[in-house]
Amino acid sequence: MERIICVCIEWLNDQQKRQIQEVASKLGFDARFYVNDQVEGAKSRIAEAEILFAHSPEALQAATDRLKWYCCSFAGVDPYCAHPEWFPTQECLLSCSSGAYDETIGEHLVMTTLMLLRRMPEYARITAERRWENQLPIRSIREVQIGVLGAGNIGSEYARKVLSLGARPVIGISRTGAPREPFDQVFPIAQLDEVLPRLDVLVMALPGTPETQGVLTKDRIALLPEGALVINVGRGTAVDQPALIEALESGHLAGAALDVMSPEPLPADHPLWDAKNILITPHVSGNMTMAWTRDECVRLFCEDLKNYASGRPLARLVDRTLGY
Amino acid sequence: MERIICVCIEWLNDQQKRQIQEVASKLGFDARFYVNDQVEGAKSRIAEAEILFAHSPEALQAATDRLKWYCCSFAGVDPYCAHPEWFPTQECLLSCSSGAYDETIGEHLVMTTLMLLRRMPEYARITAERRWENQLPIRSIREVQIGVLGAGNIGSEYARKVLSLGARPVIGISRTGAPREPFDQVFPIAQLDEVLPRLDVLVMALPGTPETQGVLTKDRIALLPEGALVINVGRGTAVDQPALIEALESGHLAGAALDVMSPEPLPADHPLWDAKNILITPHVSGNMTMAWTRDECVRLFCEDLKNYASGRPLARLVDRTLGY
Repeated sequence: MERIICVCIEWLNDQQKRQIQEVASKLGFDARFYVNDQVEGAKSRIAEAEILFAHSPEALQAATDRLKWYCCSFAGVDPYCAHPEWFPTQECLLSCSSGAYDETIGEHLVMTTLMLLRRMPEYARITAERRWENQLPIRSIREVQIGVLGAGNIGSEYARKVLSLGARPVIGISRTGAPREPFDQVFPIAQLDEVLPRLDVLVMALPGTPETQGVLTKDRIALLPEGALVINVGRGTAVDQPALIEALESGHLAGAALDVMSPEPLPADHPLWDAKNILITPHVSGNMTMAWTRDECVRLFCEDLKNYASGRPLARLVDRTLGY
Repeated sequence: MERIICVCIEWLNDQQKRQIQEVASKLGFDARFYVNDQVEGAKSRIAEAEILFAHSPEALQAATDRLKWYCCSFAGVDPYCAHPEWFPTQECLLSCSSGAYDETIGEHLVMTTLMLLRRMPEYARITAERRWENQLPIRSIREVQIGVLGAGNIGSEYARKVLSLGARPVIGISRTGAPREPFDQVFPIAQLDEVLPRLDVLVMALPGTPETQGVLTKDRIALLPEGALVINVGRGTAVDQPALIEALESGHLAGAALDVMSPEPLPADHPLWDAKNILITPHVSGNMTMAWTRDECVRLFCEDLKNYASGRPLARLVDRTLGY
């Protein structure tokens, strides 16, 4: 019986398709490529697939119990964990492509860290008014204590980058608090309230799970020191947004950079747009426009395809009950 | 006879004053501290000074032929080289504080490199209009060829930082083309026209000298590849600004980040403000608001004070004919 891989991804170039095709052939699979808006026409083929590489619930829902593994090309797979009914069977494996986004989100985080330390939201206002003011006190990445809430792939890559720029120490906060490279120290999230008062910069790179919902409460924002900065690239639901706005307006927080918010798209009349010293980006940090990200996504799928074919565990297997 | 050091710097804190005082005392000097607006009252004391640590032509002009060394707390000393009449004698040594600004200007350069690669000037417009668009193609620092025109302290520190973020190779362009760490390759400025077509990002960190004036001509901008980015932290006079504006408007350049321009302050009706995809900062990259910069400035002066006292050459001696 033919072993079929269906790939429903719109951005693949010829080289990337060849790369998947070659690995698949060697392992005895037949890989077929469809773009998202062809899912309707590809349904009969998807129904025969053993493996599906996509980022479309519609594609997944066209699969049958022949599907053994759904590889999502996104890093965050919370919608899939929240919708077990999308899967043809509960045994079907789910994997994500989290490593593919480390570089682009890591660069976004370095950029926004520097932008907030160097008060770019304020300088944007100053230059918009064509004023020549340049004495707002700025801070070096070497002078501040950075904490990363969510010490996964993305948080770790960001830590690696800021450490290489001279930040030290960099603290991680994870569910378990298990030591992890390259963090100087990792605390369990249970100790979050003890860590927050030490942080000049709080970077949030958490997956969207019931556990992380609303984790940055009003009380926890208050625990951050005066003049602290908050950056979020995980999920907007992790932050008490009204409390964040209040802390920015009062000056307790000196700035915030949000690439994710709730809801998305952010409505034009939402008060976040007007918050003091805020830098809003419309969920761009991990988008698929970067060639590096696309290449990594394909590379990681091919790597896990080899794992799958030889019976080894998938490197990016998602625990559907944890949500990541 | 008393050997006197006059320090005319407004931002020194008590610890920094103590640090200078201690080094001075050990070496047999008496250090006195004045802030800039006290120069008038301190003139009789400055007249007795053997060493002056300041950033004020007024203070320098109050000195007499007892002055042997003027240490400027700025990195760029082009006005001093252009005005030999400010010095009491032509033998008077001039040194600058260039190393002190490497960190802050290096961080500014990393920030602006990422901001241009990630199309932040465009995203600033999008978010100002509260639109939710996020598919502008962005590039990684790992995907582009970076060239640094001016491979001095600042250019080298920037190269170190982007190399640590994965950029490779990073090319330097200097007057002599002599190899210098950490550049993968250094070209003499005579070969600039051969290097430009290879660069996705051109970073300019040149001192203000007659030689560097207008170095980025219209023809050289045209030699950069389509979609290239230009960043300048040296001197505004190094760039043909009308040609830069034209190249931005035509899309030949995908963006530019200027922290220096000509003239400064930039008049409110200057066309640079309106250029497409430009990021203007009002000469903030190397300002004195960063604690790290101030500490370094003091440390470097103390280091050179030891050199001076023991008859060794000053580490940051300026060649007044070269201008740096």
